[in-house]
Amino acid sequence: MGPGEGATTGPLLGEVGERGVLAEVFAALADQPVDGVLVGPGDDTAYLRVRRAAVLATTDTMVLGHDWRDDWSTPQDVGVKATTQNLADIASMGGAGTGLLVTLAAHPRLPVAWARGLAEGMAWASRRSGVPVVGGDLGAAPDGVVMVGVTALGELPEGVEHPVRRDGARPGDVLAVSGPLGRSGAGLAQLLEGRHEGAWVDYHRRPWTDLGQGPRAALAGASSMIDVSDGLVRDADRVARASDVRIDLRPGAVDALAAALDGVPAEAARRAVLGGGEEHVLLATFVPDAVPYGWVLLGDVVAPDGGGAGVWLGPDCLDPARGGWDHYGG
Amino acid sequence: MGPGEGATTGPLLGEVGERGVLAEVFAALADQPVDGVLVGPGDDTAYLRVRRAAVLATTDTMVLGHDWRDDWSTPQDVGVKATTQNLADIASMGGAGTGLLVTLAAHPRLPVAWARGLAEGMAWASRRSGVPVVGGDLGAAPDGVVMVGVTALGELPEGVEHPVRRDGARPGDVLAVSGPLGRSGAGLAQLLEGRHEGAWVDYHRRPWTDLGQGPRAALAGASSMIDVSDGLVRDADRVARASDVRIDLRPGAVDALAAALDGVPAEAARRAVLGGGEEHVLLATFVPDAVPYGWVLLGDVVAPDGGGAGVWLGPDCLDPARGGWDHYGG
Repeated sequence: MGPGEGATTGPLLGEVGERGVLAEVFAALADQPVDGVLVGPGDDTAYLRVRRAAVLATTDTMVLGHDWRDDWSTPQDVGVKATTQNLADIASMGGAGTGLLVTLAAHPRLPVAWARGLAEGMAWASRRSGVPVVGGDLGAAPDGVVMVGVTALGELPEGVEHPVRRDGARPGDVLAVSGPLGRSGAGLAQLLEGRHEGAWVDYHRRPWTDLGQGPRAALAGASSMIDVSDGLVRDADRVARASDVRIDLRPGAVDALAAALDGVPAEAARRAVLGGGEEHVLLATFVPDAVPYGWVLLGDVVAPDGGGAGVWLGPDCLDPARGGWDHYGG
Repeated sequence: MGPGEGATTGPLLGEVGERGVLAEVFAALADQPVDGVLVGPGDDTAYLRVRRAAVLATTDTMVLGHDWRDDWSTPQDVGVKATTQNLADIASMGGAGTGLLVTLAAHPRLPVAWARGLAEGMAWASRRSGVPVVGGDLGAAPDGVVMVGVTALGELPEGVEHPVRRDGARPGDVLAVSGPLGRSGAGLAQLLEGRHEGAWVDYHRRPWTDLGQGPRAALAGASSMIDVSDGLVRDADRVARASDVRIDLRPGAVDALAAALDGVPAEAARRAVLGGGEEHVLLATFVPDAVPYGWVLLGDVVAPDGGGAGVWLGPDCLDPARGGWDHYGG
């Protein structure tokens, strides 16, 4: 996948029309998995095989200027990120993706090459994850507006009867995370400082984590799970409130995660670990001896004892509004 | 459902934040069907029961200024229309909806009452259709931008093994339509002329048709099917090209459909029947003796005979680019 060169030149959506855009998009998606796709893109709906008696379904939207900047991210990056965040939602229920729908709503002066780059990014993510793009929609938007919406469908693995929800954490459980934290947040901070290269910037542009850990956690009996999309504190707080428990983060674990962010000053690294969003690693609770291989212990679930549900770090109750991200700033 | 009063005043999205908006949306959706919903809104994904071995999935997006105008449509209208167009895509494959996901991407100065009105419209459509809203996403957008995306899941009825596609029309079949044509197009023309009341304006604002005709057509053995979303000529042309056949519209049938548009001048009625979009009735082909009760005969499927696939009316080959609608004007 190239670095998005050419995505700002060439013919525009309004010049080639829907058919022309779709031809480019279908060409980019030609080389993707087709297992389970009974009817793919091009008809009124997709038709997708289902092996279990239920499906997981989720949707997430990215908007130019809010969820990405064109001077920071190629259309391929946007395609990968939009796919990751939806597949992470499927993984956080314990499932694996089975199909993706994509919507592009854009102004008519968007270069067709941008739409093609988006499809290339999704095709890359599709091949890596084994989850096909099965359909989508093209729409027009006001001048300067570009929106990418992805819907993901998925299924639970054999042996897991119920999705892992947010509300099942119990006192005595431990909290663990499926990968490093703070990479995307550290990358965003570097981009804001004008640094456009490096591992954390790359991860912010194109988050990609082992989402197979979702089904693995479900098979191991995870009592609750969520993916870190809005920041550790905010997402752990969602689990704590839904489960009516207190989550005590282990200070040593937070320090170790921050120290792993090479080249990031200590205070910024700590902020990235606690508050950085778009990380998409998984956060789950387990009985202590059930934590799967590869997960990092991060905290302990305790009864709220009148103090209210929430996330604590040592003596401090952490305010999710200060450690995370709200789409409307509320 | 009220006429959207209050949707332009009161607190704004940016003032109440995500939680505040979600509380309003969930309140509006409280009284909807829950059959088959194993996990509903509020977790990372929905979890939906599946009775057959495959699911139908489709998505469609509406953008303020392109797909609706706030001086013509209440948020409730937008919720109904967004639901109808997605359920019509499911119906046009022969299926019935099982679940809906909704995305609202909006600028922070949108009144919360607008978001609540949208949810009320979807809840109304949900109760009427029996298809629950199972999840969604809230996102921020640039100033003045409001976008509503809906994804619909569905299933085929017992007794139908394959979805009805666009490419199965065969010479000797007849073309039939599941309801009146041109209502939405006639309503749009009246709105453009400054008329804001009447049956056709109402239908344009809130298209609602008997989508149970989709499964009925599939059970009757329909050879192809599509819903009229971009205009009769454009959508019939899609069937003709996918099936490599010529579709001859019956002039008398077109005239009768136009004459049924009370109060619309003859030439405008004809334009609305042939080119009006957002109608969402179903267009299907059948062997002549299999047309289900309630469908209106509209044309005949014939071999292209070297003339190329397309839609004809008497001696004229109809140009889909002039009879329909392209999102980018291409």
